[in-house]
Amino acid sequence: MKRKSFEDMDCPIARSLELVGEWWTPLILRDIVMVGLTRFDDMQDDLGIAPTVLTSRLRHLVDAGLLERRQYNERPPRFEYLPTEAARDFEPVLRALFKWGVKWAGAPRAEAGT
Amino acid sequence: MKRKSFEDMDCPIARSLELVGEWWTPLILRDIVMVGLTRFDDMQDDLGIAPTVLTSRLRHLVDAGLLERRQYNERPPRFEYLPTEAARDFEPVLRALFKWGVKWAGAPRAEAGT
Repeated sequence: MKRKSFEDMDCPIARSLELVGEWWTPLILRDIVMVGLTRFDDMQDDLGIAPTVLTSRLRHLVDAGLLERRQYNERPPRFEYLPTEAARDFEPVLRALFKWGVKWAGAPRAEAGT
Repeated sequence: MKRKSFEDMDCPIARSLELVGEWWTPLILRDIVMVGLTRFDDMQDDLGIAPTVLTSRLRHLVDAGLLERRQYNERPPRFEYLPTEAARDFEPVLRALFKWGVKWAGAPRAEAGT
Protein backbone atom coordinates (compact mmCIF):
# COMPACT_ATOMS: atom_id res chain seq x y z
CA MET A 1 0.00 0.00 0.00
CA LYS A 2 2.14 2.81 -1.31
CA ARG A 3 0.76 6.15 -0.32
CA LYS A 4 1.54 9.42 -2.01
CA SER A 5 4.86 10.79 -0.82
CA PHE A 6 5.10 14.29 0.67
CA GLU A 7 8.88 14.30 0.26
CA ASP A 8 9.02 16.76 -2.61
CA MET A 9 6.47 19.23 -1.30
CA ASP A 10 7.58 22.76 -0.51
CA CYS A 11 6.05 22.82 2.95
CA PRO A 12 8.23 21.76 5.91
CA ILE A 13 5.14 20.27 7.57
CA ALA A 14 4.63 17.96 4.60
CA ARG A 15 8.27 16.90 4.53
CA SER A 16 8.17 16.28 8.28
CA LEU A 17 5.20 13.99 7.86
CA GLU A 18 7.11 12.01 5.26
CA LEU A 19 9.67 11.24 7.98
CA VAL A 20 7.51 10.90 11.09
CA GLY A 21 3.89 10.85 9.94
CA GLU A 22 3.17 7.17 9.43
CA TRP A 23 0.67 5.40 11.65
CA TRP A 24 2.45 4.31 14.88
CA THR A 25 5.58 6.39 14.30
CA PRO A 26 4.74 9.28 16.65
CA LEU A 27 3.98 6.76 19.41
CA ILE A 28 7.30 5.02 18.82
CA LEU A 29 9.05 8.38 19.12
CA ARG A 30 7.06 9.09 22.27
CA ASP A 31 8.29 5.82 23.80
CA ILE A 32 11.90 6.55 22.87
CA VAL A 33 12.10 10.30 23.48
CA MET A 34 9.66 10.88 26.34
CA VAL A 35 9.40 7.54 28.13
CA GLY A 36 12.96 6.36 27.55
CA LEU A 37 12.05 2.95 26.16
CA THR A 38 14.71 2.12 23.58
CA ARG A 39 14.67 -1.67 23.35
CA PHE A 40 12.67 -3.38 20.66
CA ASP A 41 11.06 -5.82 23.07
CA ASP A 42 10.06 -3.10 25.54
CA MET A 43 8.47 -0.98 22.82
CA GLN A 44 6.60 -3.96 21.46
CA ASP A 45 5.25 -4.77 24.92
CA ASP A 46 4.28 -1.18 25.56
CA LEU A 47 2.57 -0.54 22.24
CA GLY A 48 1.05 -3.93 21.48
CA ILE A 49 2.28 -3.43 17.92
CA ALA A 50 2.96 -6.22 15.42
CA PRO A 51 6.72 -6.93 15.34
CA THR A 52 6.84 -6.60 11.55
CA VAL A 53 5.29 -3.14 11.73
CA LEU A 54 7.61 -2.06 14.52
CA THR A 55 10.61 -3.31 12.56
CA SER A 56 9.48 -1.39 9.49
CA ARG A 57 8.89 1.85 11.37
CA LEU A 58 12.19 1.66 13.23
CA ARG A 59 14.11 0.99 10.03
CA HIS A 60 12.48 4.02 8.44
CA LEU A 61 13.45 6.18 11.41
CA VAL A 62 17.04 4.93 11.28
CA ASP A 63 17.19 5.68 7.55
CA ALA A 64 15.73 9.13 8.18
CA GLY A 65 18.44 9.89 10.73
CA LEU A 66 16.26 9.98 13.84
CA LEU A 67 17.50 6.79 15.47
CA GLU A 68 20.71 4.82 15.83
CA ARG A 69 20.46 1.06 16.04
CA ARG A 70 22.72 -0.71 18.51
CA GLN A 71 23.03 -4.32 19.52
CA TYR A 72 22.98 -4.76 23.29
CA ASN A 73 22.88 -8.52 23.53
CA GLU A 74 24.81 -11.15 21.56
CA ARG A 75 22.85 -14.33 22.16
CA PRO A 76 20.04 -14.01 21.50
CA PRO A 77 20.70 -10.91 19.36
CA ARG A 78 18.79 -7.95 20.75
CA PHE A 79 18.75 -4.34 19.57
CA GLU A 80 18.02 -0.94 20.99
CA TYR A 81 17.31 2.32 19.22
CA LEU A 82 18.87 5.49 20.49
CA PRO A 83 17.50 8.93 19.63
CA THR A 84 19.65 11.31 17.61
CA GLU A 85 19.46 15.08 18.02
CA ALA A 86 16.76 15.11 15.33
CA ALA A 87 14.60 12.78 17.42
CA ARG A 88 15.21 14.70 20.64
CA ASP A 89 14.23 17.87 18.78
CA PHE A 90 10.89 16.24 18.02
CA GLU A 91 9.85 16.44 21.67
CA PRO A 92 8.12 19.86 21.32
CA VAL A 93 5.86 18.35 18.67
CA LEU A 94 4.96 15.49 21.01
CA ARG A 95 4.34 17.91 23.86
CA ALA A 96 2.06 20.03 21.68
CA LEU A 97 0.15 16.90 20.65
CA PHE A 98 -0.08 15.82 24.30
CA LYS A 99 -1.48 19.18 25.31
CA TRP A 100 -4.00 19.18 22.47
CA GLY A 101 -5.05 15.64 23.33
CA VAL A 102 -5.65 16.45 26.97
CA LYS A 103 -8.02 19.20 25.92
CA TRP A 104 -9.68 17.78 22.83
CA ALA A 105 -9.21 14.02 22.77
CA GLY A 106 -10.06 13.30 26.36
CA ALA A 107 -13.01 10.99 26.71
CA PRO A 108 -14.67 9.20 23.81
CA ARG A 109 -17.33 11.54 22.40
CA ALA A 110 -20.90 10.77 23.37
CA GLU A 111 -22.59 11.96 20.20
CA ALA A 112 -21.61 10.98 16.67
CA GLY A 113 -21.32 12.90 13.42
CA THR A 114 -22.79 16.19 12.24
CA MET B 1 -7.40 -1.34 5.41
CA LYS B 2 -8.42 -1.06 9.04
CA ARG B 3 -5.52 -0.06 11.20
CA LYS B 4 -5.33 -0.55 14.91
CA SER B 5 -7.22 2.17 16.74
CA PHE B 6 -5.49 4.31 19.37
CA GLU B 7 -8.82 5.54 20.70
CA ASP B 8 -8.79 3.59 23.95
CA MET B 9 -5.18 4.18 24.87
CA ASP B 10 -4.39 6.07 28.04
CA CYS B 11 -2.00 8.50 26.39
CA PRO B 12 -3.40 11.80 25.08
CA ILE B 13 -0.89 11.66 22.22
CA ALA B 14 -2.34 8.35 21.08
CA ARG B 15 -5.90 9.61 21.29
CA SER B 16 -4.93 12.75 19.38
CA LEU B 17 -3.49 10.64 16.58
CA GLU B 18 -6.76 8.75 16.34
CA LEU B 19 -8.43 12.07 15.48
CA VAL B 20 -5.77 13.83 13.42
CA GLY B 21 -3.05 11.28 12.68
CA GLU B 22 -4.15 9.77 9.39
CA TRP B 23 -2.08 10.30 6.26
CA TRP B 24 -3.06 13.68 4.71
CA THR B 25 -5.04 14.92 7.71
CA PRO B 26 -2.37 17.24 9.17
CA LEU B 27 -1.94 18.82 5.74
CA ILE B 28 -5.68 19.35 5.42
CA LEU B 29 -5.67 21.05 8.83
CA ARG B 30 -2.69 23.13 7.72
CA ASP B 31 -4.66 24.33 4.67
CA ILE B 32 -7.71 25.19 6.75
CA VAL B 33 -6.12 26.59 9.90
CA MET B 34 -2.91 28.20 8.66
CA VAL B 35 -3.55 28.97 4.99
CA GLY B 36 -7.25 29.72 5.26
CA LEU B 37 -8.35 27.40 2.46
CA THR B 38 -11.76 26.06 3.46
CA ARG B 39 -13.39 25.07 0.18
CA PHE B 40 -13.24 21.49 -0.98
CA ASP B 41 -12.14 22.41 -4.50
CA ASP B 42 -9.40 24.75 -3.27
CA MET B 43 -7.99 22.12 -0.94
CA GLN B 44 -8.07 19.51 -3.64
CA ASP B 45 -6.18 21.80 -6.01
CA ASP B 46 -3.64 22.73 -3.37
CA LEU B 47 -2.95 19.22 -2.16
CA GLY B 48 -3.31 17.18 -5.33
CA ILE B 49 -5.24 14.67 -3.25
CA ALA B 50 -7.77 12.17 -4.60
CA PRO B 51 -11.29 13.53 -4.06
CA THR B 52 -12.43 10.32 -2.38
CA VAL B 53 -9.59 10.54 0.14
CA LEU B 54 -10.24 14.21 0.81
CA THR B 55 -13.94 13.48 1.33
CA SER B 56 -13.12 10.69 3.77
CA ARG B 57 -10.68 12.79 5.77
CA LEU B 58 -13.01 15.79 5.96
CA ARG B 59 -15.90 13.62 7.08
CA HIS B 60 -13.74 12.16 9.82
CA LEU B 61 -12.73 15.65 10.98
CA VAL B 62 -16.37 16.78 11.02
CA ASP B 63 -17.32 13.70 13.06
CA ALA B 64 -14.43 14.36 15.42
CA GLY B 65 -15.64 17.91 16.03
CA LEU B 66 -12.78 19.76 14.33
CA LEU B 67 -14.68 21.06 11.31
CA GLU B 68 -18.13 22.31 10.44
CA ARG B 69 -19.45 21.63 6.97
CA ARG B 70 -21.36 24.39 5.23
CA GLN B 71 -22.83 24.66 1.78
CA TYR B 72 -21.81 27.88 0.06
CA ASN B 73 -23.25 27.25 -3.39
CA GLU B 74 -26.59 25.79 -4.39
CA ARG B 75 -26.11 24.82 -8.03
CA PRO B 76 -23.76 23.13 -8.39
CA PRO B 77 -23.67 22.17 -4.70
CA ARG B 78 -20.36 23.18 -3.16
CA PHE B 79 -19.16 22.90 0.43
CA GLU B 80 -16.68 24.55 2.68
CA TYR B 81 -15.24 23.35 5.98
CA LEU B 82 -14.84 25.80 8.82
CA PRO B 83 -12.49 25.17 11.73
CA THR B 84 -13.93 24.80 15.21
CA GLU B 85 -12.05 25.85 18.32
CA ALA B 86 -10.58 22.35 18.49
CA ALA B 87 -9.07 22.81 15.03
CA ARG B 88 -7.79 26.30 15.75
CA ASP B 89 -6.19 24.91 18.92
CA PHE B 90 -4.26 22.49 16.73
CA GLU B 91 -2.16 25.30 15.28
CA PRO B 92 0.64 24.98 17.89
CA VAL B 93 1.12 21.36 16.80
CA LEU B 94 1.39 22.46 13.17
CA ARG B 95 3.82 25.22 14.11
CA ALA B 96 5.99 22.78 16.05
CA LEU B 97 5.99 20.40 13.06
CA PHE B 98 6.86 23.30 10.74
CA LYS B 99 9.78 24.29 12.92
CA TRP B 100 11.04 20.73 13.15
CA GLY B 101 10.72 20.32 9.39
CA VAL B 102 12.69 23.45 8.62
CA LYS B 103 15.54 22.10 10.69
CA TRP B 104 15.41 18.37 10.03
CA ALA B 105 13.41 17.72 6.87
CA GLY B 106 14.94 20.39 4.70
CA ALA B 107 16.58 18.99 1.61
CA PRO B 108 16.37 15.35 0.54
CA ARG B 109 19.17 13.46 2.26
CA ALA B 110 22.15 12.62 0.11
CA GLU B 111 23.14 9.36 1.75
CA ALA B 112 20.82 6.48 2.50
CA GLY B 113 20.41 4.20 5.53
CA THR B 114 22.80 3.31 8.31
